[in-house]
This record gives sequence, C-alpha cells and structure tokens, in this order.
Amino acid sequence: MKIMALLGSSRRNGNTEYLVQEALKGMDYQSVYLLDHKINPIVDQRHETNGFDAVEDDYEKLFKEFLDQDIIIFATPLYWFGMPGQMKIFFDRWSQYMLDDQYNFKEKMRGKKAYVIVTGENPPPKTAALPLIQQFQYIFEYVGMDFVDYMIGKANKPEEIRQGTYALTKAEIWRKEIKDVVVI
Amino acid sequence: MKIMALLGSSRRNGNTEYLVQEALKGMDYQSVYLLDHKINPIVDQRHETNGFDAVEDDYEKLFKEFLDQDIIIFATPLYWFGMPGQMKIFFDRWSQYMLDDQYNFKEKMRGKKAYVIVTGENPPPKTAALPLIQQFQYIFEYVGMDFVDYMIGKANKPEEIRQGTYALTKAEIWRKEIKDVVVI
Amino acid sequence: MKIMALLGSSRRNGNTEYLVQEALKGMDYQSVYLLDHKINPIVDQRHETNGFDAVEDDYEKLFKEFLDQDIIIFATPLYWFGMPGQMKIFFDRWSQYMLDDQYNFKEKMRGKKAYVIVTGENPPPKTAALPLIQQFQYIFEYVGMDFVDYMIGKANKPEEIRQGTYALTKAEIWRKEIKDVVVI
Amino acid sequence: MKIMALLGSSRRNGNTEYLVQEALKGMDYQSVYLLDHKINPIVDQRHETNGFDAVEDDYEKLFKEFLDQDIIIFATPLYWFGMPGQMKIFFDRWSQYMLDDQYNFKEKMRGKKAYVIVTGENPPPKTAALPLIQQFQYIFEYVGMDFVDYMIGKANKPEEIRQGTYALTKAEIWRKEIKDVVVI
Repeated sequence: MKIMALLGSSRRNGNTEYLVQEALKGMDYQSVYLLDHKINPIVDQRHETNGFDAVEDDYEKLFKEFLDQDIIIFATPLYWFGMPGQMKIFFDRWSQYMLDDQYNFKEKMRGKKAYVIVTGENPPPKTAALPLIQQFQYIFEYVGMDFVDYMIGKANKPEEIRQGTYALTKAEIWRKEIKDVVVI
Repeated sequence: MKIMALLGSSRRNGNTEYLVQEALKGMDYQSVYLLDHKINPIVDQRHETNGFDAVEDDYEKLFKEFLDQDIIIFATPLYWFGMPGQMKIFFDRWSQYMLDDQYNFKEKMRGKKAYVIVTGENPPPKTAALPLIQQFQYIFEYVGMDFVDYMIGKANKPEEIRQGTYALTKAEIWRKEIKDVVVI
Repeated sequence: MKIMALLGSSRRNGNTEYLVQEALKGMDYQSVYLLDHKINPIVDQRHETNGFDAVEDDYEKLFKEFLDQDIIIFATPLYWFGMPGQMKIFFDRWSQYMLDDQYNFKEKMRGKKAYVIVTGENPPPKTAALPLIQQFQYIFEYVGMDFVDYMIGKANKPEEIRQGTYALTKAEIWRKEIKDVVVI
Repeated sequence: MKIMALLGSSRRNGNTEYLVQEALKGMDYQSVYLLDHKINPIVDQRHETNGFDAVEDDYEKLFKEFLDQDIIIFATPLYWFGMPGQMKIFFDRWSQYMLDDQYNFKEKMRGKKAYVIVTGENPPPKTAALPLIQQFQYIFEYVGMDFVDYMIGKANKPEEIRQGTYALTKAEIWRKEIKDVVVI
C-alpha cells in the first residue's frame, strides 16, 4: 500500500498540510508539494500527427510515482473557487499520457482511492468549494478512481484550522479508515 | 469601450477561438493567448510581513491591460472539467494585486462585463461544464464583475464547432448585444 | 413517436408554456399541466413487507401515459431554485413503480429523450437554475434517459419571454431537431 | 431561543429523524413531520389583481410557527436527487407570504439559523446531494437566513445511519454549537 499526499498550496505549513498530517499520522507516505516541481502547462497536441513532444520538466518523473500509488490525498486551499493553477496543470498533463500505451493509464488509475481536502475562508467554503468538489468527482469518475471522501475546512490564517473541531474529527475518521486499508 | 478575448486553449485555431471570432466579428478587440505568455504560479505571500515579492514574468503587463478593459470574453476548452491551469493561474495571481492600493483593483473590476465560452466533447459539456460555470459565477460575483452570459459548445476536433448551430447562433446574439454596448 | 410536454407551472399561459409551444409548433403532442392532476406525495413503503399501498389519485394513469412517450419536455419556472413541489412529486412517485415488474420501468425509461425548459428572473437563472439542471442530469442518468438539451429562459411577468431572442432561437433549433427524429 | 426540526421524510423513525434526535438531544424543540400536514401546492397568483386566494389547508398555521423559530433543522432523505415534493411545497408557499406586509417575512427570516441534514445511499450522496445543498444555499441567501452547516449521511435502510461515525460525530458537534447559542 503506497500513499501520496499531493499538496497544491503555494505556502508551507499551511492548514491543508496540517490536516494531511493529522489524517496520515503514524503512516508512511510521500508528500509532494507541487510548487517545488517545475511543471509546464500542457500544450495540446492530441490532434497532431506525431502526438505529444517530450517536455523538459519534472512532470514525467512525478507522474510515474503518482501512477504507482494506491491512496492519494489531494489537499489544497481554495484559490478563486477552484484548485490552484499548479494543481490543475498536474491534471491537464494527464491528457498527454492517457493515450500512451506504455503507461497503462486506464488500468493503473482504476480503483486508486482518492481523498480530497479543501480549505477556505470567505465566502464560507462549505458551499463555495462545492463546484471544486464536483469537478473532482467528474475527474475521478472519468478515470475510474474511487472518490472515498472529502472534507472542507474553514480557515485562512496559518494554523487557524487547529481550532476547528469538525475538520480534525474527520481527519481522525480517515486515519482509522486508511489504517484499516493499509493493514490489509 | 475596450474588448479583450482571453484564450485559455493550448492550441491555435481551435473551436473556442472560432467562437470568439464569430462573437466579435467586425469589432476591434485584443486577443490574448495565455500560452504565449510566461506566467508563473502564484506564491502565496499574503501573510508575510513584506507582502508579495516582484515576479519576473509577463503577468503584470498583461494584468494592467486586463484592468483597462470594459468587456472580456473568457474562452476556453474544458480541460479535466475545469479551466486549463494556465488560465487558472491568471486568476490566482489576482490575489497579489487585489490588496495593492496602486492598482485600484476593486473599483476597476466592478462593472466589467464578462462573457464565458467553454467547449468540450465528452462527457457532454452541457452538464460537465457546469461546475466551471459556477466557478466563474463565484469569481465574477466576488469582484463585482457583471457575468453577462456564457455559452457551452460541443466539439472536440478542430473546426468541428462550425457545424453546431446553437453555439453559432449564440455568438450572433452576443455580437448584436456587444455592438449595442460598444456604440453607446 | 409520441411527445409529451410536462408543465410544472402553477399558472396558465406562462412563459414556459409559450416556449414549449414554440419548440413543438406543428407537431402532435400531449400537454400535461401537473396542477390539473391530483397527485399525492409519496409515502415511502419500500422497506415494508407488503410494499406500496395503492393510492387513489390521478398519478397511475398519468404515469402509464408518461411511460409510453418517446420524447418528453419538462417545462417549469424556477421556484425557490428548484422545480415546483408538484413536479417533484411526479418524480418521487417513480419510486413506487420502479421496482414493480409489471411496469417494466427500467426498460421503458431507457433511451427516452428528455428536454428541459426552465424560466426564471432574479437572481439571473442562467446560474441560479444550475443546481436544478444538475438534478435533472442525475435523474435522467439514473434511469437511463437521454438528456438531449436544456434551455434557461429569463423572464418573469407573463409574456415577457417573447422578447428574449436566445430562448426563442433555441426553441427553433429544438423544433428542427425533434422534427428530424419524429420523421424517422 | 426556539428550535424546530422540519422533517421531509415520508417514513417514520428513519435515519434523518435519528440524526435530528442526536443533534438536539437534551434540548427542547418542535418536531414537524411535513407528511402529517395537509399542504397544497402553490397556485401562483402573484400577477393577479387580487393577489393570492386563501387556501384551506394546514400551511398557514405551520408557517406562522415556523416564522417564530430561531433555529431550524431541515432534515430529509435525498429523493430523486432533491428534497421530497412535500418539503419543496413548504418553500413554494413562501411566495404567497413574502409580499404580504402583515407577516413581516423579510425581517423575520433574516438571521434565522439553518442546519441541513440529508441522507442518501446510492449514488453516494456526498456528491449526489450537492445540487440540493446548493439549492438550500440559494434559498437561505435569498431570504437572509444564516446557513450554519449541513451534513450528508450515507444510509438507506432504517437504522443504518447508527453505524456511520461521521454523521454522528457531526451531530455531536452541532449539539455543542446549538447548546452554546441556546444558553446565550
């Protein structure tokens, strides 16, 4: 069982990172800050004769590691009512690999367990984040991933989330859930 | 009256570009392909003492031009059930300027007219694009822009949109509408 | 080819009715005003040993006619950001019949063509009606109906819709589309 | 401080009722099963010269009690991806009273605290219930109610919800929250 936390925040030690740590406390997992990686926007070459050109950045290595995971936590603050651009590019680039036989994209995606953590402040994220949750739902359904659960935390300033009982309680429930899976 | 078309596609001469041309036929407007511009992801420094560092890329120039527009058409294919990462970064970077007095962000945003063009293929974008439309609605409402209308075109392969009567008809309606505004 | 228009409005000669007439001009169809029918709310007896009791109202007759249609236009004003209660009960009562073998519910639903007309005024229905459109999408997907298209008209006072070019244009496009199907 | 639980289920002793009891344990509150009340669908007479006719059913009495509450829990199973028709009619009928000066509708609505409990089973309600949550958000925002929180429980068969740790934990958090308000 391999677990990856994919962090979209452009700030270290933020609320989403804290919730990830709570949810995965005591477990081995790989933590990926997308901002630490050079990932170029996709250039759509699906309709060109030679397909996609190779891109010189950090994506392919990261993507291969991602393909190898069983459980992924997508954790991000709500930026302008969506995921940050750098996280969106992570998904956009899938288009380059999903049709490439050597990656076995469809089969490897199917059944991966996905958890989503979103934090925001104002307007209240419990509804302002719902278009993003629906977007994740569409993405996971499209590639056959299992969208296990999401949590929407309310917080903005660093460390504020530690006062929110709901998000922490949910992190604890996930922790038990994931541990059960990992043990098996 | 200044009009800008902001194009999120990573491909030239695509369907969204065609719809933009139809909607703005015969009018002066500035066409911006986001992919032609080097725009770095935002680094969130809202909570740091000295605020945001200057970023060496094309954003600030582009953003100033954007602030100067009266009507903006956001035109983009649906990538993974959302806007492409490079378009999202365009919005993410607003956070750097909205609190900076010299840009007069709030006042300049208020009342700008926004149109949205989204194209997609499968799953049918008429519903798969709705979380994105809702995200745009939240963004425009938050900054006080006037979300005039959107259209969702169904097409994928280059030039396919030209067969779709609905999108073209809507482009024509917009054209009349915008011309009326421009004349005034 | 049988066509039914299911009207949720609690007012005659309203905007949705007008749009239905435009979309189906020159075709034979059955027009059903839900308010003309006595339809009781569902009493959930799915988990009771003897299943559902018979209900003395107009529903079963209407439901049988509905099952017999090929194309259905669901037309309704937006009431409190959703369909009117009397239209919702029309769907709620499906639960009574979907598990009853004699109705052949699943097979009869599959492939029916569904069109949706929603009209509203304020807040602008182009976004305020989207949760309702998403609800229709879930319903149609669940029973295997083909959600062909929807239109969201902006209008409130009687006859106001006749000034809206967009909705009328869409009605015209549908008319051609449906005529093509009916001819085949 | 007056608390009302408005129950949309057409079944007694169901999961939503159980969650309401957990959330309000130890507090005084009025529990209203909508199905116990005769509430007719609205007849839209907003545009008629004499306005709305009086309706002979249980609504007006119930509505007056509702207007008198400080905290309301709207609790309902997910029926066809929305609230049941009988609950929707409860909202539809607001249109009759919101323009009637003697009810002081706007002022009385403003600031009421709203909680929403939705339960469902399949497709997973954590996303299938989101259009309904968005509808509630629109309704509460429109009348100025304070949408404090919602929970989406997964369960179908009677009593199944008692096994779900998440919903029960959230009910407990609400209980503390509401008690704090009530004490003040």
